Amino acid sequence: MSDNFSKKRLITLLSDFGICDEYVAVMKGAIAKINPIVKVVDITHQIPPQNIAAARFCLMNAYPYFPSGTVHIAVVDPGVGGKRRGVAVELAQGFLVAPDNGLLGGVLSQNSAIAAVELTNPEYWLTSQPSNTFHGRDIFAPVGAHLANGVSLQKIGREINPESLIKLDLPECTHMDNSVTGCIQYIDHFGNLVTNIPQSYVKGSNWSVEVKGNIIKAQETYSDVKVGEKLALIGSHDWVEIAVNSGNARLELGVDLGLQIRINYE
Amino acid sequence: MSDNFSKKRLITLLSDFGICDEYVAVMKGAIAKINPIVKVVDITHQIPPQNIAAARFCLMNAYPYFPSGTVHIAVVDPGVGGKRRGVAVELAQGFLVAPDNGLLGGVLSQNSAIAAVELTNPEYWLTSQPSNTFHGRDIFAPVGAHLANGVSLQKIGREINPESLIKLDLPECTHMDNSVTGCIQYIDHFGNLVTNIPQSYVKGSNWSVEVKGNIIKAQETYSDVKVGEKLALIGSHDWVEIAVNSGNARLELGVDLGLQIRINYE
Amino acid sequence: MSDNFSKKRLITLLSDFGICDEYVAVMKGAIAKINPIVKVVDITHQIPPQNIAAARFCLMNAYPYFPSGTVHIAVVDPGVGGKRRGVAVELAQGFLVAPDNGLLGGVLSQNSAIAAVELTNPEYWLTSQPSNTFHGRDIFAPVGAHLANGVSLQKIGREINPESLIKLDLPECTHMDNSVTGCIQYIDHFGNLVTNIPQSYVKGSNWSVEVKGNIIKAQETYSDVKVGEKLALIGSHDWVEIAVNSGNARLELGVDLGLQIRINYE
Repeated sequence: MSDNFSKKRLITLLSDFGICDEYVAVMKGAIAKINPIVKVVDITHQIPPQNIAAARFCLMNAYPYFPSGTVHIAVVDPGVGGKRRGVAVELAQGFLVAPDNGLLGGVLSQNSAIAAVELTNPEYWLTSQPSNTFHGRDIFAPVGAHLANGVSLQKIGREINPESLIKLDLPECTHMDNSVTGCIQYIDHFGNLVTNIPQSYVKGSNWSVEVKGNIIKAQETYSDVKVGEKLALIGSHDWVEIAVNSGNARLELGVDLGLQIRINYE
Repeated sequence: MSDNFSKKRLITLLSDFGICDEYVAVMKGAIAKINPIVKVVDITHQIPPQNIAAARFCLMNAYPYFPSGTVHIAVVDPGVGGKRRGVAVELAQGFLVAPDNGLLGGVLSQNSAIAAVELTNPEYWLTSQPSNTFHGRDIFAPVGAHLANGVSLQKIGREINPESLIKLDLPECTHMDNSVTGCIQYIDHFGNLVTNIPQSYVKGSNWSVEVKGNIIKAQETYSDVKVGEKLALIGSHDWVEIAVNSGNARLELGVDLGLQIRINYE
Repeated sequence: MSDNFSKKRLITLLSDFGICDEYVAVMKGAIAKINPIVKVVDITHQIPPQNIAAARFCLMNAYPYFPSGTVHIAVVDPGVGGKRRGVAVELAQGFLVAPDNGLLGGVLSQNSAIAAVELTNPEYWLTSQPSNTFHGRDIFAPVGAHLANGVSLQKIGREINPESLIKLDLPECTHMDNSVTGCIQYIDHFGNLVTNIPQSYVKGSNWSVEVKGNIIKAQETYSDVKVGEKLALIGSHDWVEIAVNSGNARLELGVDLGLQIRINYE
């Protein structure tokens, strides 16, 4: 492997490990032992513990912005040590390494897999006797580092049908003549409410969102309304979003994940 | 651009994006697509949402410690998608890329700008059709990555007068014969109260701070008083600071940002 | 120093500085001024303020996973500016740079020091007049960067006896015929309770932990019990741990650091 090659590969990490303990650093140490110079970018480690749906959403939204060849290692893993498979997937634009529990479902709904393997070859693990509780360190990080080093997918495990990978069922949004019904699928750090209605479902700019009895008109951007006022808009990840200019829509509206909302045209 | 050159440039990021969502990672992905090996250092992403004053303070204090040529990208941007300008500034020691909303005022109060441009050239953006809500990803990160690659300031936009950049008015501290009046401009993670009185305003070591009826004597360092006791000192960023040895001065004194304080000589 | 050499060294940072202020970034800037391309990995900066025991625990657990030659800079430093020594230690597998206050005691209990110095040579500091409050920036980060650059330990200070380094007394666990008594030494982000009883003290798999009147049976891994149920296990850092499958043992059991627990055999 030429030095030049591995310098251009990038690894991302996503987990629910938080940033208070040494767990994330230990994964980075395990990576550095295999490839001391590969660049590692944290997507986030603040996924609420065991919340596969939130991890799925963040990975799906981050994925398209990374360079070709990036290796994404994602570990939200309530089934660690049990029967769930560890898997790696090759896509046109990069690699995914994760437990097979639905976490990859978002990326896979928007990108087709070229190949997938179950992580069965201990030669690419930290140890042939992995712990029962921390496969991020013992399996996923080392495997990802080897992929970033140019090791082929086929070497790290037994080939499986990408169709067999677990997707996560999200409530679907329903398209009618004069409205679209969906729900809040994610709430970000600013309190912006991200729905599961994609931009492509929305016609024109003359629409409003109905949420908990409020009618909130669509705008181009936050500053189209006064500070403290509510608006609906197409957010930066191309989903319909509900926000408050310089405020927190979650607190303002008192809503939670999963709440049904409706788009109406005028 | 020689590989060697770009390896020596550094990019810093500062924002109010938090670390729970994928926003910061997406900026890093956008940077890596332009320069996969440039080193990126986070200043902080925990600026309270839309708090330009706190961002201004952190950037001002971090700036002097970075190597010559560093590109600082700072995004606290309540006016995103509206009329505020995006700007880049060249200084003797590095570059600043940010919305023109006062965020750069601290660095600019201590360093003179060599040149400034408005970010008008979409050739250096992620897309010529930027979103209305996430210029960090669509404009600031890509422009910063191109600057780190050695692209000249003049190529990325229309030259503007550095004097026209928005500063942020801070309450000034007032210098009298036997006292200095100022206020608390920042409270750090330890609860230390950072005033807006610079070291240069303080004569000798025989002084005390009056805050909410407390008289707190100046010391050299924390351990000059017993654990749990209050002290005033010149903090590590060269501002007068109020602290509690191994404790939290904010909680202990029950004070908040902006509170007036006074230095008295004995 | 060849470029190739320094590229292979790694620096880790551990502190109680939090991630809201610019303190950590300032240390990274100070490092980059000395070595712009060395890779820096954060272990954590969320050590509770001044909590040397938690820092000692995290550093001890992260240490073995980093490549040979890694320089670990750790700054939890309630005595900064006072009489405590700043020290650097060379081990077979890397270097430690820290205040001499017990923080290094965990690593040193598991690895023998080859040599140790007190940081007395200002030539390797940021400034020969360090502040009284931020030796992370002024002394520890620069010294660590020079070590990563290949400067020898002997150059950066006066040699001291490694035996003189301060260890931190932890309550010991007591080994009896049919039981082991210990305590909770750390609680992680998931609420898992990590005891001070090492794997080597536990015989077989037929044991249970007694904590606050609860009897909790040993299992191989989380998913050996139903979601929401308690279990005891050998955790990923090889200490006996108490957990709840997909839950939070700290909240569930209402326990705190230091609580006594007992292992019984059947």
